[in-house]
Amino acid sequence: MAHIALDEKEISPIAKSPDVSTTASSEGGTKPKATCLQQHFSEESRNFQGSALKKTTRLLSNFIPLGTGRPHTELYPWTSSDANWPTSLNKPSGPEDRARVPSIYTLANALTYGTALGAPSLVQFLTEHMKSIHAPPYQDWAVCLTCGSTSALDIIFRTFTDRGDVILAEKYSYPGFIESSALAGVDIQPVDLDGQGLSPHKLGQILDQWNTLERPKPKVLYTIPSGQNPTGVTQSQERRRAIYEIAERHGLIIIEDDPYYFIQLGPNTASGGSNLESVSRQLVPSYISIDKSGRVIRLDSTSKILAPGLRAGWVTASQQVIDKYAAYHDLTTVSVSGLSQFVLHDLFNLQWGQEGFSTWLQALSLKYTQRRDITVAACHSFLPSDICSFAIPDHGMFLWVSIDLRMHPMYAAEGQMVQEWCSQVEDRILTLGLANGVQVTKGSLFFTERSSGEAELFFRLTFAAAKEQDLTEGVRIFANAVKTEFDCRGSV
Amino acid sequence: MAHIALDEKEISPIAKSPDVSTTASSEGGTKPKATCLQQHFSEESRNFQGSALKKTTRLLSNFIPLGTGRPHTELYPWTSSDANWPTSLNKPSGPEDRARVPSIYTLANALTYGTALGAPSLVQFLTEHMKSIHAPPYQDWAVCLTCGSTSALDIIFRTFTDRGDVILAEKYSYPGFIESSALAGVDIQPVDLDGQGLSPHKLGQILDQWNTLERPKPKVLYTIPSGQNPTGVTQSQERRRAIYEIAERHGLIIIEDDPYYFIQLGPNTASGGSNLESVSRQLVPSYISIDKSGRVIRLDSTSKILAPGLRAGWVTASQQVIDKYAAYHDLTTVSVSGLSQFVLHDLFNLQWGQEGFSTWLQALSLKYTQRRDITVAACHSFLPSDICSFAIPDHGMFLWVSIDLRMHPMYAAEGQMVQEWCSQVEDRILTLGLANGVQVTKGSLFFTERSSGEAELFFRLTFAAAKEQDLTEGVRIFANAVKTEFDCRGSV
Repeated sequence: MAHIALDEKEISPIAKSPDVSTTASSEGGTKPKATCLQQHFSEESRNFQGSALKKTTRLLSNFIPLGTGRPHTELYPWTSSDANWPTSLNKPSGPEDRARVPSIYTLANALTYGTALGAPSLVQFLTEHMKSIHAPPYQDWAVCLTCGSTSALDIIFRTFTDRGDVILAEKYSYPGFIESSALAGVDIQPVDLDGQGLSPHKLGQILDQWNTLERPKPKVLYTIPSGQNPTGVTQSQERRRAIYEIAERHGLIIIEDDPYYFIQLGPNTASGGSNLESVSRQLVPSYISIDKSGRVIRLDSTSKILAPGLRAGWVTASQQVIDKYAAYHDLTTVSVSGLSQFVLHDLFNLQWGQEGFSTWLQALSLKYTQRRDITVAACHSFLPSDICSFAIPDHGMFLWVSIDLRMHPMYAAEGQMVQEWCSQVEDRILTLGLANGVQVTKGSLFFTERSSGEAELFFRLTFAAAKEQDLTEGVRIFANAVKTEFDCRGSV
Repeated sequence: MAHIALDEKEISPIAKSPDVSTTASSEGGTKPKATCLQQHFSEESRNFQGSALKKTTRLLSNFIPLGTGRPHTELYPWTSSDANWPTSLNKPSGPEDRARVPSIYTLANALTYGTALGAPSLVQFLTEHMKSIHAPPYQDWAVCLTCGSTSALDIIFRTFTDRGDVILAEKYSYPGFIESSALAGVDIQPVDLDGQGLSPHKLGQILDQWNTLERPKPKVLYTIPSGQNPTGVTQSQERRRAIYEIAERHGLIIIEDDPYYFIQLGPNTASGGSNLESVSRQLVPSYISIDKSGRVIRLDSTSKILAPGLRAGWVTASQQVIDKYAAYHDLTTVSVSGLSQFVLHDLFNLQWGQEGFSTWLQALSLKYTQRRDITVAACHSFLPSDICSFAIPDHGMFLWVSIDLRMHPMYAAEGQMVQEWCSQVEDRILTLGLANGVQVTKGSLFFTERSSGEAELFFRLTFAAAKEQDLTEGVRIFANAVKTEFDCRGSV
């Protein structure tokens, strides 16, 4: 029934993988090595070395394998005649990049157990990508594939936090992060942010004034530096440097969660060239690009720039962190889905190359810019400007609309019970929007602490998910819901 | 650059998914409902409800989605012209089953965010499969896809154990389980096993005599009932019933980790018919098939019966457990890779159907039977019978070879330091085997506690991974390594 056809030599990804990330990324000479983070590791992870069994299977190549419960490929229901499967996909870039990188990740590789780091060809591609775009300024950095940044965040929580710890983050943040913190028993210490993102002034103040007798001082800062979720703001270069210096001074690890880095909006993307260098020059420096001491853990995701269904991304950090990360893979997901890796290998190594990837990212930025511009125009047209305000994002996919509750006819009367009343107003706007066909996201989902009675509420609008032609209508319906709630008759 | 072609209506798996598992599996009438397991949940998981944000996105269908950061399919680099991608695969069974199940999982579904439970079409297929094969005898059971059983074990540890807990398991067990226990800070209480697997007598004794003043009584039993890893033994029907009764009496949850269930070896598989009912009749009853009170958490995996690179399996348990499981997905891997699901949907729903799946499993069992028979014959030919012994497994892929150290020429002299000396003998046999081209697995990797001075060591041999024609030679090399260590000159 099964067709025995896969070439035996195709199924030794493991034999090819040892030290790929190390050899690909470690750089000798003048760069410093990463600071030792041993004291930052959690109780759970401190002595965790990964799977002993998996280590033994790394001896596989050239032996008759009577040791490992890895079924021979003749036992799979797919055959090598399907090995060219995804190369038949209709890809954006032409075939000129093909055969530039040898195809060393086959269907047989995809179907068998993968390695914790990821397919060597993918790790190598992503390491080269990290070198060209970010060039971390220390020696011993490395890359590991992740099963998406949500999974990576979970593993990083387990690696670096114990129950009762405190973690620093933007005051408004990604709910997946907020909920992961709660699950890990970790409290969030919110840091204010303004139109340029997280405030280094406030961050420094919090840390300088920390009472270590009351609670252990935070050792981790979680930040979304570009197109922040939900506010859409992007930290300037100066701000990043100031925050990094504070991290150095206080021994903080920085989790740089940066899925929107390449979704760069505005005139920059339209004017740029199409080669890698020009993209690189236009991009704001990431934290890892200024990370002299190996304290940044950078999360990249394919979810916003390729497709979320892949459940794939990559983490870049010092070798000691990547070793822990891979150890967690051994005992959790083992590896990224082989089929996701197969398709990524095909796209990156066989179809696109580094330049094709860069071209894709620029084209994608243009699409998002169009979508942003349509949405912003609709907001200007329909949102009541005395009630609603927003900043125009230059990265990402989010518009953070602030609503001034003081303009509400019931505000004075309800002043005594702001918190509950705010929630009611928020719910009514949401429900009215849904009743008329638009779904937006309540700002309160992004609060790291309960609102402290500010006369303001928020909605997050995204221009990523809807059909481009529906964006204007969506904003119009939302605006009408706001107006109705604020009793601006005649507009609905 | 991107080709805008995917049909909008294809991308609402979420809109189709609510309550699929419930409606598919809940059965009314005479069956009891599952016992409430609230007191079994860990501190971490007790109040954990999953992601609020993900819940809001479940409203997506029929609205203009300005709420969710889920990129529109026009923003992906793959197009609908590739939607028939995996159906071009050369599958074992013919096309007669096609179109029997509607294709409601498309490439667009695969590329966007998936749901925690898994694609509805897959959950439905697997629920039907569970009904035909296992028919859990209570009402409110459900199925959730997993990112493989290693990932499932990790989530189940988080769901049910706190640091300092004790978990029951076979004395020799899967290293991934042993290492996950260590990571979770959970101690293993080993239970002896014999030629029929885990001993109900010993299990009862341990629980009856447990001193709850010293340590909290275990509330979880982890067992691999069929083709146990590493011993290869399969629990008889009587034994399973006896163990289940003990679980009932002591309020234990049973984690039934059963990846080898369908790899059924021996004359049974050769004589049986090819339809679903005949397979079902031949199989030993699983724990979940006798689970009146919903205390079994059954793990199935695609790794040994389809392909490990998919990183996919499924967990079957009571709805309350599945709800927690899905909640963990929300904050960890989000979903199984869409491409893995796409390929599984294609195989199960479009190519095979239930009967095709059953046919595949029977054919696979025959292949494994051949491999087992070759390996057993080689063991009989080459292993020194005065030193080595083993039982012939009737499930799975492992042969557990016991080596009698009392036959070793140095045994008497080294009697004083059994533990260390055993390890040295084990290492020397392993190393000599590798030097001559065979890889086997040291038995000590499977010990849940340090050996207590028994004059016995073990190696696990598998007949799954090698080429069939290499099995005999592999065993011969291993046997020679044993003989050399035991100084049986003239055999090497």
